[in-house]
Amino acid sequence: MGAGLIGASIGLGLRAAGWSVTISDVDPKAEGLARSIGAGDAPDGSEPELVIVAAPPAAAADVVVAALEQWPSAIVTDVASVKGPVARAAQASGHGARYVGSHPMAGREVSGSLAAQGDLFRARPWVICAGEAPESAVAAVRSVAEALQGDVVEMDAQAHDAAVARVSHAPQLAASAVAAALGTLTAEDVALAGQGLRDVTRIAASQPGMWAEIATLNRQALVETLDHIIADLEDVREADDIGAAVTDLIERGRMEVARIPGKHGGVKREWTPVTVIVPDEPGRLLALLTDVAAHDVNIEDLTIEHSPRQPVGLTTLWVLPGSAEALQEALEANGWQVAAP
Amino acid sequence: MGAGLIGASIGLGLRAAGWSVTISDVDPKAEGLARSIGAGDAPDGSEPELVIVAAPPAAAADVVVAALEQWPSAIVTDVASVKGPVARAAQASGHGARYVGSHPMAGREVSGSLAAQGDLFRARPWVICAGEAPESAVAAVRSVAEALQGDVVEMDAQAHDAAVARVSHAPQLAASAVAAALGTLTAEDVALAGQGLRDVTRIAASQPGMWAEIATLNRQALVETLDHIIADLEDVREADDIGAAVTDLIERGRMEVARIPGKHGGVKREWTPVTVIVPDEPGRLLALLTDVAAHDVNIEDLTIEHSPRQPVGLTTLWVLPGSAEALQEALEANGWQVAAP
Repeated sequence: MGAGLIGASIGLGLRAAGWSVTISDVDPKAEGLARSIGAGDAPDGSEPELVIVAAPPAAAADVVVAALEQWPSAIVTDVASVKGPVARAAQASGHGARYVGSHPMAGREVSGSLAAQGDLFRARPWVICAGEAPESAVAAVRSVAEALQGDVVEMDAQAHDAAVARVSHAPQLAASAVAAALGTLTAEDVALAGQGLRDVTRIAASQPGMWAEIATLNRQALVETLDHIIADLEDVREADDIGAAVTDLIERGRMEVARIPGKHGGVKREWTPVTVIVPDEPGRLLALLTDVAAHDVNIEDLTIEHSPRQPVGLTTLWVLPGSAEALQEALEANGWQVAAP
Repeated sequence: MGAGLIGASIGLGLRAAGWSVTISDVDPKAEGLARSIGAGDAPDGSEPELVIVAAPPAAAADVVVAALEQWPSAIVTDVASVKGPVARAAQASGHGARYVGSHPMAGREVSGSLAAQGDLFRARPWVICAGEAPESAVAAVRSVAEALQGDVVEMDAQAHDAAVARVSHAPQLAASAVAAALGTLTAEDVALAGQGLRDVTRIAASQPGMWAEIATLNRQALVETLDHIIADLEDVREADDIGAAVTDLIERGRMEVARIPGKHGGVKREWTPVTVIVPDEPGRLLALLTDVAAHDVNIEDLTIEHSPRQPVGLTTLWVLPGSAEALQEALEANGWQVAAP
């Protein structure tokens, strides 16, 4: 139920995996569009085994309860990015044993079923909140996540909401606040921005779309996280020794950022940057990577920084520490200009 | 004067451009190291035409004044990332007409002359603050920046400090505060992090190093910026209608982030993402870019997101909107799995 990006993508993915899927939406146009791209058939009135509610976050609880009441034995899950309110509504309905919460954490926000793709969830975390449901119901929802090749994580709804406030909702608002503070600057001032500001504010370009609903539903955890962030910034602001306060905050941030997983669930390895000046012309990046590959060096990560006023980009190749020096020498021998990291 | 990363890099770059350079440091070891990599000769006691003070920010004002007093006609510049305090000290010394402030905005922080490279400044903004100095003195400092291929921007010292508080100093602290707020989470919670959190907190991995000195020197502008950020987050925190407050903040952030220059000084073009699932194996990224090049599509930007638990990465190619659909079809025809953006 729900034929937006998430609903249609689930439909496409499950049908590709051989499942029998029907799709519906309160908006007949959206429903028709989703059906036309093959995301599911028209409902035929018979009771489904599993109902997946892909409604906007603010509507999820009501649609989940309606589905639990409409079908006496179907298992119902949803995909809303705040799990507590839906779980509480399902429990209050008396049908909580047939409700399992889901949060497939698909990547960047786009919307509408035209952007739908069956592999939207592949290799992305898919949180499952069992709540009052028995293992058989959880297994049914898990099989959806697995069919779509999501990365299943079981969590308590409350813990999920507290976690996403800190890893997603509050960072979005902090990035927007950093961007909003640029409002006093001239265009020339803003042009002093380096890669650091670009990184911090990248998600500030997001559409407000669902964030208003998410903030309303996850208000308590969001406010607790904002309080934490505000208190840390206030401590710097009001410190007698601002230098010591800054050192303390940055040290605490460093400890936490080291816990964000990098490759394969491990703590981010210590990669070494090799920054190359790449003319902003077609084919140059490919030529660079071809030269890198010829020296048998694997690139762990790659970032590109465009120069504001010159037709070159600074491409940073992140490699294992043991490879950096030899790579730099080899690239220079190939005629590349390697800049300091 | 000063043989750390910046001083030694300037020395290397200017010597490569044919300049005659001497280098000194209060630490004889650092001075010897810089000289051994060819960053400059030993001072011979004669008056230089131009003195470049590359001391740590907290020491810059004193070293600049000492240089102005030691040499009766040399032009003196410095490279400190906060310009007001040095300019005021130079003016108070009575020799302000021979002082021109510089802020070469070299990329990511590393330190020590062993990391020095003459092209550290190439294609990066190099701010010049003329202050009381005549055009001839400004021209001398401009010639340094141009020899090192920096991107010269003339600004008032006060305006510079206000700008860097907003584009650099406060964003660093906000990123650290977002990271520090992860402290209450378990490792499993933190593993829900997506690319958004990774972007926002990337600079939170910085060493505190100079940030304490920078915050102390630029306290006023930094506190004003933190006040702006804190006030925006407080508005969300305390709003009767948190959804409306979130929408307002995100909308204001979007307007400002659109002003951060992308390529060639223009406002960032609207690029379209094409996200490809790339197995985490040597050579696969190169194979992808080879296929892209075969379809005559230029990549405007490229980002890589590693999956926390699976041996694949999601590589996003940013291309001009008109190229995206055809590129996606072509890559799929080549056997690539294109994920939703």
